[in-house]
Amino acid sequence: MRTLEGIGSTPLSGIGTARWHRPDADLTLPDSSDPSDSSAVDPDAERERFERARDEAREAIRQARDRAAERVGEEEAAVFEAHEGFLDDPGLVDDIEASIADGTPAERAVDDRFAEAIAQFEAMDGRMAERADDLRDVRDRVLRALLGAEAADLGDLPDGTVLLAERLTPSDTAELDPDAVAGIATVTGGRTAHAAIIARSLSIPAVVGVGESLREVAEGAEVLIDGDGGRVVVDPDAAQRAAVGGASAPVVDEHVSTADGRAIEVAANVGSEAELAPAADRGADGIGLFRTEFLFYDRESPPTEDEQYEAFSAALEAFPADRVVVRTLDIGGDKPVPYLDLPTESNPFLGSRGIRLSLDEHADLFETQIRALLRAAAREDGDDLAVMFPLVSRIEEVEAALAVVDSVASDLTKAGIDHAIPELGAMIETPAAVFLADRLAARLDFLSIGTNDLTQYVMAADRENDAVADYHDPLHPAVLRAIDRTTTAAEGTDAWVGMCGEMAGDPALTALLVGLGLDELSMSAVTVPAVKERVAAIDAEAATDLAAEALACETRAEVRELLDA
Amino acid sequence: MRTLEGIGSTPLSGIGTARWHRPDADLTLPDSSDPSDSSAVDPDAERERFERARDEAREAIRQARDRAAERVGEEEAAVFEAHEGFLDDPGLVDDIEASIADGTPAERAVDDRFAEAIAQFEAMDGRMAERADDLRDVRDRVLRALLGAEAADLGDLPDGTVLLAERLTPSDTAELDPDAVAGIATVTGGRTAHAAIIARSLSIPAVVGVGESLREVAEGAEVLIDGDGGRVVVDPDAAQRAAVGGASAPVVDEHVSTADGRAIEVAANVGSEAELAPAADRGADGIGLFRTEFLFYDRESPPTEDEQYEAFSAALEAFPADRVVVRTLDIGGDKPVPYLDLPTESNPFLGSRGIRLSLDEHADLFETQIRALLRAAAREDGDDLAVMFPLVSRIEEVEAALAVVDSVASDLTKAGIDHAIPELGAMIETPAAVFLADRLAARLDFLSIGTNDLTQYVMAADRENDAVADYHDPLHPAVLRAIDRTTTAAEGTDAWVGMCGEMAGDPALTALLVGLGLDELSMSAVTVPAVKERVAAIDAEAATDLAAEALACETRAEVRELLDA
Repeated sequence: MRTLEGIGSTPLSGIGTARWHRPDADLTLPDSSDPSDSSAVDPDAERERFERARDEAREAIRQARDRAAERVGEEEAAVFEAHEGFLDDPGLVDDIEASIADGTPAERAVDDRFAEAIAQFEAMDGRMAERADDLRDVRDRVLRALLGAEAADLGDLPDGTVLLAERLTPSDTAELDPDAVAGIATVTGGRTAHAAIIARSLSIPAVVGVGESLREVAEGAEVLIDGDGGRVVVDPDAAQRAAVGGASAPVVDEHVSTADGRAIEVAANVGSEAELAPAADRGADGIGLFRTEFLFYDRESPPTEDEQYEAFSAALEAFPADRVVVRTLDIGGDKPVPYLDLPTESNPFLGSRGIRLSLDEHADLFETQIRALLRAAAREDGDDLAVMFPLVSRIEEVEAALAVVDSVASDLTKAGIDHAIPELGAMIETPAAVFLADRLAARLDFLSIGTNDLTQYVMAADRENDAVADYHDPLHPAVLRAIDRTTTAAEGTDAWVGMCGEMAGDPALTALLVGLGLDELSMSAVTVPAVKERVAAIDAEAATDLAAEALACETRAEVRELLDA
Repeated sequence: MRTLEGIGSTPLSGIGTARWHRPDADLTLPDSSDPSDSSAVDPDAERERFERARDEAREAIRQARDRAAERVGEEEAAVFEAHEGFLDDPGLVDDIEASIADGTPAERAVDDRFAEAIAQFEAMDGRMAERADDLRDVRDRVLRALLGAEAADLGDLPDGTVLLAERLTPSDTAELDPDAVAGIATVTGGRTAHAAIIARSLSIPAVVGVGESLREVAEGAEVLIDGDGGRVVVDPDAAQRAAVGGASAPVVDEHVSTADGRAIEVAANVGSEAELAPAADRGADGIGLFRTEFLFYDRESPPTEDEQYEAFSAALEAFPADRVVVRTLDIGGDKPVPYLDLPTESNPFLGSRGIRLSLDEHADLFETQIRALLRAAAREDGDDLAVMFPLVSRIEEVEAALAVVDSVASDLTKAGIDHAIPELGAMIETPAAVFLADRLAARLDFLSIGTNDLTQYVMAADRENDAVADYHDPLHPAVLRAIDRTTTAAEGTDAWVGMCGEMAGDPALTALLVGLGLDELSMSAVTVPAVKERVAAIDAEAATDLAAEALACETRAEVRELLDA
């Protein structure tokens, strides 16, 4: 038995048989130090080979995108659009073509110029460095096309495989079959690399950044991947094997309560229709966050009212007895949608986003979406539909959004179209919404705390900037106090308070969140069973004491210590 | 008497004699529709003329920069660096050169290509559109150089001039003599254009964006500029003239108290040594914010400890009996300093800034600055020195900063160098600092609320993005509640609470701020007399009631109504 430490990337555990993925072997080029091999090269022919290889790679990337969109989700699939962008990067392409014009064979030109670009990315910090893996992915596609090499088939691994690799590209990862692959461990990589994000979406246990020691794990060894603790255990003992077995909580379809009887809804966040069935399979008590952005991506014009109605209907059908909370379009300068003509902003996270666009530049889209929602609420299974507005920071916005709902309802009445008013709520994502939570709770049916954005604004730390990653943790006491101010403000009103940020899906925080007074937790479907199991084990009164102690902490370290105790 | 409405840009009033500035008259080129005039053109000679004109313009821009840095301030002068950037913009320069190569005379090529670029900027939203004026400024310099035209001398206008113009460039504005120019009004423009910012720094009353009606004001007319109300009054009556006279509050050198005896410090924000004497002349009770960034701009390497010591000494000498609050280096991705090698970030306002850099990448600079500060505190006039840390969002940061102070003090003791520990405080700029204000107040001597950043983070609205300018107003109830939470948290501790954002300098808000419990207000020196006058007229108890009413408001409009009543 040997334990290697790495970075837990998908917080799940699995055991299986080690199998090394060594994809680059057949793409290794001869050393370029010998200039004699360029003498026989015809630049025109090489350029043509390069162009054909580029077309082939482009086609492969598009297929990968579509497959990933279907299997993993639209948001995760977007990485392949960036990959296509690399193929068209003028700097890179010009350099390669210039190199070919100088008499370098195409594969050598591609390998060398990509190597330079990869080195440039790697010299950068954090997240940018992780983009080097994306470049490698694209390079390998072009090289494979040039060399007529086949990609390793990762979609057909035997059941119980633990895949070990120097690194995994996003393409590799998107191919994996979650039913067959018990886990992943890689020598390099970080939590926020695209491959890691895709593995999380596929619910494959993963530990990344293990370092050189991983190389010593032999092909065929029995390996335990502990994605929660960030550990890779080679030849685990019986106790460890049993612990992994026990860590996979059973699916519970019923709603759960704490040991002393406080009901807590455990719902799922869903970002595409494909995720509906898996969420139901995992026992989610409905959908706490139905993102509508996927309806707008990858098309030439906005979705019609009927298309949206169909999507909302699908969600209601998947959860006939449970609540479905739809978030209205939450888009902005950081999520470009070509036909929406969104502005380029210096600080997109502090710009025109969410409800701001819905009440201004894109009032037409908002109205269409509200029409579809009001119609869906009139369905036989539409009683449980709820709608929430993203990025609220002013009471005026809620007034204006409610006015749109009223005016759409009156239009539908005039037109004789069936409709109903769903439950209405606001996301609590801005500190302004926290400070106004009492007023929002008095006006609306519910509040839903989005901890990802809330943490970013409370701490003034971009959630995508690794340089401030340390700030981006909801366990900082300031964020806990913001959550507490929100739930406290809603006390004495009829509004329920939920949470749909990543924090909600961490079973280690369930007691704290119940103690802070949340009525609902919504998360990636994969963690629903574990959180339900935690809820049932919690004493709500003890949880309240725990929360009070956490609120008295001054630092995140103290909060951590408290939770570990 | 006729009143024209515009956008108040510098909130001061002045009366004078209208004088139209029509700078473009001598730069007008013949219509380019006649192609025959290109036949005699020698492209090589024209290209050479263009290059010479570009060099001449560059030299003029650099001179303007240095002059502005001295007269207006380093921060405002930075616009001229952007101007130099336009001169080197490859897209623009290549287009002009290509046009010249096609046989177009240099001035025509410059005029046409700049016109295209200006049109592109104008098609954009808000702040980007305002950059079109910067391009015009650069174009005019190049054209003047090509045509041998002289720039109008705006530095020598007769006393009591009210300058009227279609638009004013930053260069024009930086030339103006605040003692001679009683006011400015322009047809176009916005509050955040560079010219408007410079006019504010020079304390010249200004109304911008008046529109076409301004053109009807005759040369020589008597004009009142009401920069607070955003009005231009032609032929004002006696009452209005008297009101303007009365609006200029007398300078009061003594500290002031409210009518019922609560002492409020009215201090100045200072961003360069040149601003020290004017601040003292305006009767400021010391410096509430001494920015140290100017020490780091426009040089090849960081300032030495001795250079910083000299700067802090100059501030202490300017205010021998009053407090001088120095803010440690507050720099980040949005304020590039070449030799600091700061990262480019997608959301610089949510990135590595302020104390974050001082405790991490730039710990060396921080230590040097603290050494200089501790030495300055040991001066005979150093008792009143105070030091505050920017962008605090975690208690750990304060602990770490205090540890640096201790370790520097112990190094100085060992080296036998005179030093003392100044008052220490934190800026309250992040919502996190608001939520932790009780703990910060317990640890530190004072808190200083920076409303510009605080508003930006509470409302999740970039303060430089015009698309969300409406969100960037500290009168939104959420921001008032954040301020209230801060002052309330400090009650019962020994810490005083000040404010050094723009909100502090608006006399219309003084009663509200006193009512919210602030002990100190720090502002641009120009508004010190007016705020002192307001403080003396306020009843602190009535102000507390006013603040309570404002905190109960749900919208900014309600707060405004309350303050107007």
